[in-house]
Amino acid sequence: MRLANVTGTVTATVKSQSLTGLKFLLVDYTDAGGKVIDAARVVADDVGAGVGDQVIVSEGSAARLPNGMAGLAVDATVLAIVDEVKTKARRAAAKSG
Amino acid sequence: MRLANVTGTVTATVKSQSLTGLKFLLVDYTDAGGKVIDAARVVADDVGAGVGDQVIVSEGSAARLPNGMAGLAVDATVLAIVDEVKTKARRAAAKSG
Amino acid sequence: MRLANVTGTVTATVKSQSLTGLKFLLVDYTDAGGKVIDAARVVADDVGAGVGDQVIVSEGSAARLPNGMAGLAVDATVLAIVDEVKTKARRAAAKSG
Amino acid sequence: MRLANVTGTVTATVKSQSLTGLKFLLVDYTDAGGKVIDAARVVADDVGAGVGDQVIVSEGSAARLPNGMAGLAVDATVLAIVDEVKTKARRAAAKSG
Amino acid sequence: MRLANVTGTVTATVKSQSLTGLKFLLVDYTDAGGKVIDAARVVADDVGAGVGDQVIVSEGSAARLPNGMAGLAVDATVLAIVDEVKTKARRAAAKSG
Repeated sequence: MRLANVTGTVTATVKSQSLTGLKFLLVDYTDAGGKVIDAARVVADDVGAGVGDQVIVSEGSAARLPNGMAGLAVDATVLAIVDEVKTKARRAAAKSG
Repeated sequence: MRLANVTGTVTATVKSQSLTGLKFLLVDYTDAGGKVIDAARVVADDVGAGVGDQVIVSEGSAARLPNGMAGLAVDATVLAIVDEVKTKARRAAAKSG
Repeated sequence: MRLANVTGTVTATVKSQSLTGLKFLLVDYTDAGGKVIDAARVVADDVGAGVGDQVIVSEGSAARLPNGMAGLAVDATVLAIVDEVKTKARRAAAKSG
Repeated sequence: MRLANVTGTVTATVKSQSLTGLKFLLVDYTDAGGKVIDAARVVADDVGAGVGDQVIVSEGSAARLPNGMAGLAVDATVLAIVDEVKTKARRAAAKSG
Repeated sequence: MRLANVTGTVTATVKSQSLTGLKFLLVDYTDAGGKVIDAARVVADDVGAGVGDQVIVSEGSAARLPNGMAGLAVDATVLAIVDEVKTKARRAAAKSG
């Protein structure tokens, strides 16, 4: 899974039937300190995350395992909102929670 | 999923039976501001996208979940045409819609 | 899918039974202009491609969807030989076809 | 699979039902010498690994094959704690075991 | 698939039941000339490869298709030992075979 910061939302009127009802979040994948590693991934959301939240994203077929995602053509889903990232060197306060 | 700009089309007469009837779009994966992150992906299309559109692409087995893609040997499909990307810092106008 | 140039072949006598009968091509993944993005992928072939051809490669489980690949342990297969790549900016002549 | 060093833990109260009961480790993917190649992956754990351990991580659907991970929406799981990495050039002492 | 050089072995006493009986090789993914592209992947082995061999590795679910890998939580397996890599520009002697 990837640590990510929710940076925005993406709206689309013309959308595949395989994504019916889905809302899209825009996230950046980061390291524990918030430095962006991979920018601008579009993800589904299973936990009600919002802009500014630090989250955990699963990719691939794992993204479709939550009940709400079954059968949808998503390849990345927010599965948790981070409370705290504890590392050996330091204790990084999460941006939400 | 990935934000992408449709930059062209790819034609192929000699084609696997596993791709029968499929048309190919050429896209660049970009960040929210349109900067290219990963260039030149060839993708299937479930929504009638065209050159110049900003789109959302799903990769992996998700690419085969739309009805029209079932059983085809595709690993990336356009699933939506972007209306708008809203980010914390700014509101980026989509290139289409 | 990826645009690729076929650059060579790979031969192997000691081979898993899960690859019985399979021949390997060596390809470079490129952008529309032929610039190498990811070098030296070993791929199966469903369309009779040869060295010098510009091709389209599917990765992951999609690589095993062509009839001839069912059950083989391949993760990338050539599915088409490119006739032409048309982009907004220019019309790139394919290296084959 | 990837060689990784466990660098921390991630806690989350708001969590998808598809991750019920799961604890998250934070790891860096490294080379044999411990140099970080890909930072800050969040992983599940099937072997009781802790911070400071050198481990092996499987990604993708492989991450859900251990009994304890069946049906959980994870895409990366620690499957072993490394005793020793032996390379041609040198014998690298593992950080644990 | 990827061209790879086997550079070492990895041993682990504490190991998931989903890897029972499995030995791990350490490989570097290379280009046709032996230049390292992606270092330090841990892989299973279906062909009896050893340190110094040039091999072909399949990733993802393909890694579990060989008989001996069925049900094991591996995401990369050596499937062939390379005899020869022939490229347009030159004929690269394999390091083994």
